[in-house]
Amino acid sequence: MKAVRFVEVGKPAEIVDLPQPKPGPGQVLVKIGGAGVCHSDLHVMDEDLGLKGPFTLGHENAGWIAGIGQGVHGWKEGDPVAVYGPWGCGHCHTCQTSAENYCENHASLGTMGGGLGSDGGMAEYMLVPSPRLLVPLGTLDPAIAAPLSDAALTPYHAIKTALPLLTPNTHVVVIGIGGLGHMAVQILGALCAATVIAGDIDDNKLAHARELGVRHTVNTRDGDAAAEAIRKITGVRGAVLALDFVGAQPTIDLCTRVVERNSRITVVGLGGGTLHYSANNPPYGCAVTIPYWGSRTELMEVIALAAAGRIHPQVEKFSLGEAVAVYQRLRDGKIKGRAVLVP
Amino acid sequence: MKAVRFVEVGKPAEIVDLPQPKPGPGQVLVKIGGAGVCHSDLHVMDEDLGLKGPFTLGHENAGWIAGIGQGVHGWKEGDPVAVYGPWGCGHCHTCQTSAENYCENHASLGTMGGGLGSDGGMAEYMLVPSPRLLVPLGTLDPAIAAPLSDAALTPYHAIKTALPLLTPNTHVVVIGIGGLGHMAVQILGALCAATVIAGDIDDNKLAHARELGVRHTVNTRDGDAAAEAIRKITGVRGAVLALDFVGAQPTIDLCTRVVERNSRITVVGLGGGTLHYSANNPPYGCAVTIPYWGSRTELMEVIALAAAGRIHPQVEKFSLGEAVAVYQRLRDGKIKGRAVLVP
Amino acid sequence: MKAVRFVEVGKPAEIVDLPQPKPGPGQVLVKIGGAGVCHSDLHVMDEDLGLKGPFTLGHENAGWIAGIGQGVHGWKEGDPVAVYGPWGCGHCHTCQTSAENYCENHASLGTMGGGLGSDGGMAEYMLVPSPRLLVPLGTLDPAIAAPLSDAALTPYHAIKTALPLLTPNTHVVVIGIGGLGHMAVQILGALCAATVIAGDIDDNKLAHARELGVRHTVNTRDGDAAAEAIRKITGVRGAVLALDFVGAQPTIDLCTRVVERNSRITVVGLGGGTLHYSANNPPYGCAVTIPYWGSRTELMEVIALAAAGRIHPQVEKFSLGEAVAVYQRLRDGKIKGRAVLVP
Amino acid sequence: MKAVRFVEVGKPAEIVDLPQPKPGPGQVLVKIGGAGVCHSDLHVMDEDLGLKGPFTLGHENAGWIAGIGQGVHGWKEGDPVAVYGPWGCGHCHTCQTSAENYCENHASLGTMGGGLGSDGGMAEYMLVPSPRLLVPLGTLDPAIAAPLSDAALTPYHAIKTALPLLTPNTHVVVIGIGGLGHMAVQILGALCAATVIAGDIDDNKLAHARELGVRHTVNTRDGDAAAEAIRKITGVRGAVLALDFVGAQPTIDLCTRVVERNSRITVVGLGGGTLHYSANNPPYGCAVTIPYWGSRTELMEVIALAAAGRIHPQVEKFSLGEAVAVYQRLRDGKIKGRAVLVP
Repeated sequence: MKAVRFVEVGKPAEIVDLPQPKPGPGQVLVKIGGAGVCHSDLHVMDEDLGLKGPFTLGHENAGWIAGIGQGVHGWKEGDPVAVYGPWGCGHCHTCQTSAENYCENHASLGTMGGGLGSDGGMAEYMLVPSPRLLVPLGTLDPAIAAPLSDAALTPYHAIKTALPLLTPNTHVVVIGIGGLGHMAVQILGALCAATVIAGDIDDNKLAHARELGVRHTVNTRDGDAAAEAIRKITGVRGAVLALDFVGAQPTIDLCTRVVERNSRITVVGLGGGTLHYSANNPPYGCAVTIPYWGSRTELMEVIALAAAGRIHPQVEKFSLGEAVAVYQRLRDGKIKGRAVLVP
Repeated sequence: MKAVRFVEVGKPAEIVDLPQPKPGPGQVLVKIGGAGVCHSDLHVMDEDLGLKGPFTLGHENAGWIAGIGQGVHGWKEGDPVAVYGPWGCGHCHTCQTSAENYCENHASLGTMGGGLGSDGGMAEYMLVPSPRLLVPLGTLDPAIAAPLSDAALTPYHAIKTALPLLTPNTHVVVIGIGGLGHMAVQILGALCAATVIAGDIDDNKLAHARELGVRHTVNTRDGDAAAEAIRKITGVRGAVLALDFVGAQPTIDLCTRVVERNSRITVVGLGGGTLHYSANNPPYGCAVTIPYWGSRTELMEVIALAAAGRIHPQVEKFSLGEAVAVYQRLRDGKIKGRAVLVP
Repeated sequence: MKAVRFVEVGKPAEIVDLPQPKPGPGQVLVKIGGAGVCHSDLHVMDEDLGLKGPFTLGHENAGWIAGIGQGVHGWKEGDPVAVYGPWGCGHCHTCQTSAENYCENHASLGTMGGGLGSDGGMAEYMLVPSPRLLVPLGTLDPAIAAPLSDAALTPYHAIKTALPLLTPNTHVVVIGIGGLGHMAVQILGALCAATVIAGDIDDNKLAHARELGVRHTVNTRDGDAAAEAIRKITGVRGAVLALDFVGAQPTIDLCTRVVERNSRITVVGLGGGTLHYSANNPPYGCAVTIPYWGSRTELMEVIALAAAGRIHPQVEKFSLGEAVAVYQRLRDGKIKGRAVLVP
Repeated sequence: MKAVRFVEVGKPAEIVDLPQPKPGPGQVLVKIGGAGVCHSDLHVMDEDLGLKGPFTLGHENAGWIAGIGQGVHGWKEGDPVAVYGPWGCGHCHTCQTSAENYCENHASLGTMGGGLGSDGGMAEYMLVPSPRLLVPLGTLDPAIAAPLSDAALTPYHAIKTALPLLTPNTHVVVIGIGGLGHMAVQILGALCAATVIAGDIDDNKLAHARELGVRHTVNTRDGDAAAEAIRKITGVRGAVLALDFVGAQPTIDLCTRVVERNSRITVVGLGGGTLHYSANNPPYGCAVTIPYWGSRTELMEVIALAAAGRIHPQVEKFSLGEAVAVYQRLRDGKIKGRAVLVP
C-alpha cells in the first residue's frame, strides 16, 4: 500500500510502498477514509522532537474497521471510526480516565501516537494498537471527521476545562481564527452562552468569525488598540477566558491585558511566546495553562457535536499522492481550513 | 484447581474441581491471594437476579498475575493486583471514564462481572478478561486488599460524589457501622473535615465507630429519639449528607429527617426500603441517590488510601474449603468485619 | 398606592389602597414596572402554607429604584432592577454563596420573601429589605424581566446543577412545555449541546417546543407509548436528565422510565406526585431532586441570557386593577405564557 | 482610643489617640480582641501600593460586636466575630458568591479593606462597613482567630481550588513552612489524603513540618538536589500540586521541575519571582496561578476547622503599645508563627 513517511529531521516526507499491516492480538486495522494534514507535521519534519523515523505520518485519522485482532470484542469490520491521536500507556490513573494526552508514563513510551513516532494514517491502512483508541462515527464522513480528532478536539478540551467560568454574563476572547480558532468559536457557541470576542490580524479571518456567529471582532495587529477595544466590550470584569491559538509574544501579551481577577488564559498555539507570570500580572487568580490535545471521551463529544451539525470543519480533500505538494502549500499558508488526504 | 461455585438459585454453593484456566489474547490470569465473602453472594444464591449458573463465586478479588495473554502489554507475572469488580463493555462513554459500574450497555452484557455471572475469584486462579480491570497493589497484602475492591470502593464512591458539600462546617450522618459503614467513617476522616455522626442499633458497633475516631454516635433503634439527637448536634443546617448502609425503611426514613435543604441522601444498603420523595419532603434541593459500586480510578484511590495506612479493613481469613460454612456464618451474623477466602 | 393583597386562606385577592412605603436604613424602594402572576399565588390563597396575611402579592418583580435607605451604597434612583424572590437570612454559609433559596435559617424567618409572607410587587411601589436582593437590568424592559425572576430562574437553577452531565452526546427530556418548560428548552439550547426531547399531553405545546428549536417532541398522554418513543430516540444510554415541570404521578413515573444509570431526575412541578426510589428503580446512580427557585447569581445569569436575546419569555400585560380577573383566567388555564401586572 | 496608624510611605507606623468610632446605618462596631501583624504591612509602609494614609493598620482582625448600626439585623452585641479582610463592592457577580477577594470593581474602590486603605483593627475598636464581612467565632478565642483570617484563609483558598486533583494517590509539594506554609500542611491534612512533601531552606522549619504530621521533608537550598529528591518520592507522576509560599525565583523554578502534565502550580508568596510559561515548560496541562486571599465562605470554613481543632496557628501575643517594636522584630525575622496585638 502507498504511505506518506517521515524519514528524518530536515528531509521532506516520502511516498513509499509498504505491505498492508495485519492486526495482531488486541489490535485493530483501520482502512483510512481521511488523514488530516497538520502544522505539527512540519515541526516533526523540521525540528528534533525526539521522534525516530521512519514512520508513516498522519495523526488526524478516520476510516472503517478492516481487520480485528484476537481478543478484541465489541467491534466489527466496516464500522466507521475516528482514531484517537495521543496514545498513552492506557493503564495509569490518568489514562484510565481517558485523558491519554496527559499519560503519566508519556516520557517512557517512545512514541506520542500514530503519525508521531508510530505509523499513522497517511496510508491506505493503519494499525491501531487497541480498540480503546477508536470512537464510532455513526453517519459522519471519515474525511470530515479526521481533522476533528485534533483541530476540534484540542480547542474543545481547552474550552471544556474553562466551562464553569463561562456563565452567560461573561466574555471570552479567542485570538487566531484559523484551523483551530474557527472550530473554537463554534464550540463556544454550542457549549455556553458567554459572549465571544474574536481577534486576528487578518480581517478576512474576522469576517469568517462573524459568519460563524461571533458578535464582536477586533483586529489585533495593534496590541494597544486591540486591548482597549476589547476592554471597552468587556467592561471592568474583563474577559473570563482568553484563548490564544497563535501563542506568539504579542498575542500572549494581549491575553494578559484583557483578563481580570479570577479568570483563565489558555495558550494553545505554539508560536514561541512566553507568558511571564509574576505578582498580580496577569491579575490575581488568573489560571494560566498550555493544554495538550484532549481526552478519549472529549473526542466522543466532539464527534457528537459534528454529527448534530453544531460544528463544521472547513475541509479541502487531496489524494495521498499529493501529500508532498500539500505540505508545501501548508508551509506557504495556502491551505484554507484543513487539508485532508483521502486514499 | 478447587473452586466455590454458584449452581442455581435456591441451592448452596458447591466446592468443585476445575481445570486451571489459560489466558487467551487480551486476557490475564490471576493467582488468587484473597477473595472476599460478601452479603451480595447470598442474594445471588437466594434470589433470581438474572444470573445464569454455574459460575465460580467471589467478586472481591486480589492476587498476583500468573499468566498474560497475547496482546497484553505493561504487566508482568508476579505483579500483585486487585481485580476491579463491575465489568462493563469497556468502550461506551461511561466505561471510557472508568465508571464501568454505570456501563451504558450493562443490560446486554449477560454478566455483572467475575463472581456475578462470570467466573470469579473463589478459586486458585481467575481469568480476567482485560488488563484494564487490574489495579497494582504495591506492597499491600492481597488478602487485605481483596475486600477493599467492594467494601471500601462502594462507600468511597458514595462519599466522593458528595465531597463538594462536605466543607469543614458540616455534618455527615453514617447509618450502619458494619462492613461498609466502618470503612465509610475512615474514608470520611481521610477525605474531608466534616464532622461525622455514626448511627446504629447496636451499641457495640457505635463503640467501634468511636474507636475509629468518630466524634458523635447515636443509637437509632428509636427513630424519633435518634432524629432529635442528631438534629441537636447538627443545628438548623441539618446533615449535608446522610449515608445509609442499611437501606431498610426505618433507616431511610431517618435519613429524610436529619437533612435539610441543599443536601444529599445516599442509600447504599439494600435493605428493601423505599424513599418517597415528594414536594419538600425530603427538603428542597436534597439529592437522593442509590449508587452502585465504584469506578476503576476510584479503586486505585482506595488502594492508595489503604497503602498509606489511612483505612484498615477488619479481615478474618478462611480457606477455600471452608466457604460453605463461612456463608452460613455470614447468614447467622457471626462474621466480624469481612471474611476472606485465601486459597 | 394601589396594591393586590392576600388576606387569608380561602379568600380571593383584594385590591386596596395603601400608603407608599418609605425605605428605612439598609432598605431600597422599587417603583414596580412589572409583577408576574404565578400559579404559586393560587396555592398561597387556597392552602395553608404557614403564611400569615394580609400582605401584598407578587413574587416576580422588576422596576426602577425609587428610594434608597441610609447605609445603602452603590445604587442610585432610576436604576432598573429585578428583585430576587426567595429572601433568606443573608448571613448563613448558604446565603453567603447567594443561594438564599436554600437559606439554612429559612424555617425561622417567618416569610419566604416579598409576595410570600412579606409585601410583594403587585403594587405601585415595593420595599426591598436589602440591596443584595437587586439585580441590574441594563436595557431590559422590567415587564419582560419580572417573570424571569421565577419562571426562568427556577428552570435555570435546575439545569445548571445538572450541566456536567449534559455533554453533546446526551439527551435531556423536558416534560411540560408551559410557563417554566418553554423557558427550560431555551435555556438548555443556550447552555449546552445536549439533544432535547420535549414531552407534553398538549400537541399545541409540542408545536411551540418545535418552534423554539427542540428537535424531538413526544406526546406523553399514553405513558407506555411515550416511554417507548423516548427510549427509541435516546438508545441504551437513556436520557441523562429528565426535567419534570408537571410533577404529577404519571409524569414522575415517566421520568423514571426514560433515564438509565448515572443520570438525574429533577422534579420542578408541584403536581402532587411522589417518586418512589428503591433499589435500582430508578436505575443505580440516578440522582433525584426537587429543587427550589434559584440563587442570586443565577438570577444575574438569567438576566444576562435575556439581555443577550437567548431566551424570550411569552408575556401578556395587564393592569393592577385586573388582578382578580387575571387570577381567575390563570385558574381556568386561559393565560398563555406569563401574565404580568404593570401598574 | 489607641490606634496603630500608617501615615505615609517610607515612615514607620505611629501610635495615636483617636475618638472611638460610632456605627452608622448598615455598619457594625467591633471591639478588637486580636489583630494579626502581617508581612504585608511592611509592604504597605515601604512601597507605594496606591494606598493613601493615614489609616489604622491591621487586616487580620477578630473581636466582639460592640455596636450595631440602624438596618443591621441578625447580630447582637457581644457576639464574637472574625472580620473578613478583602472588602469588595459587595454587589458584583463575584462578590455575590462571597469571593470579594476577586471583586470585579476592586480597581475603583479606593481601598483594599480595613488596614489596607480603610481603618483596620490595630485599635481598641474597628468600624466594619457591613455585617456581610463578619463570621461568627463560636467559642474560638479572638486572639487565635485573628490571624486565621489571612494566614489560614489564604492557603485554604489556594488548596481548596486544587482539591479535585488531590486524590489519595497523589503528592503535593509545599515550599516555605513559615506563617502560611505551616497552616497549609495542616489544612492539607484536614481536607484530603494526598501525601505532603514539605520543602524549606531551614531545617528547623522542616522539623516543624514533621511535627505537624508531614511525611516527607526536603531541604530546598540546593535546587537540583531538591528537585531530584522530590521526584524520587513522587515517581513519574510528579506532584499534582506545588504550593509556593516563598515566591522567589529559586522556589518558583523548583515548582516547575517537580510537577508533570495535568497539574497545578500555585504561587502565594510575594518573593519577587516570575514563572516563565512557554510550550511544555512547565509541562502541558499545568495550571499556574497566583491567588489572592480567600472568600467569605472560605473564612467560615477556616473558622470551623480551627474550632474543630484541626488547625492550630502559632500565636505570640503583644499589646498595642508594642506595635512598632513588633514590626521591627518581624523585619528582623524574629517572630515565630504569627504576632497578634491584643488591645
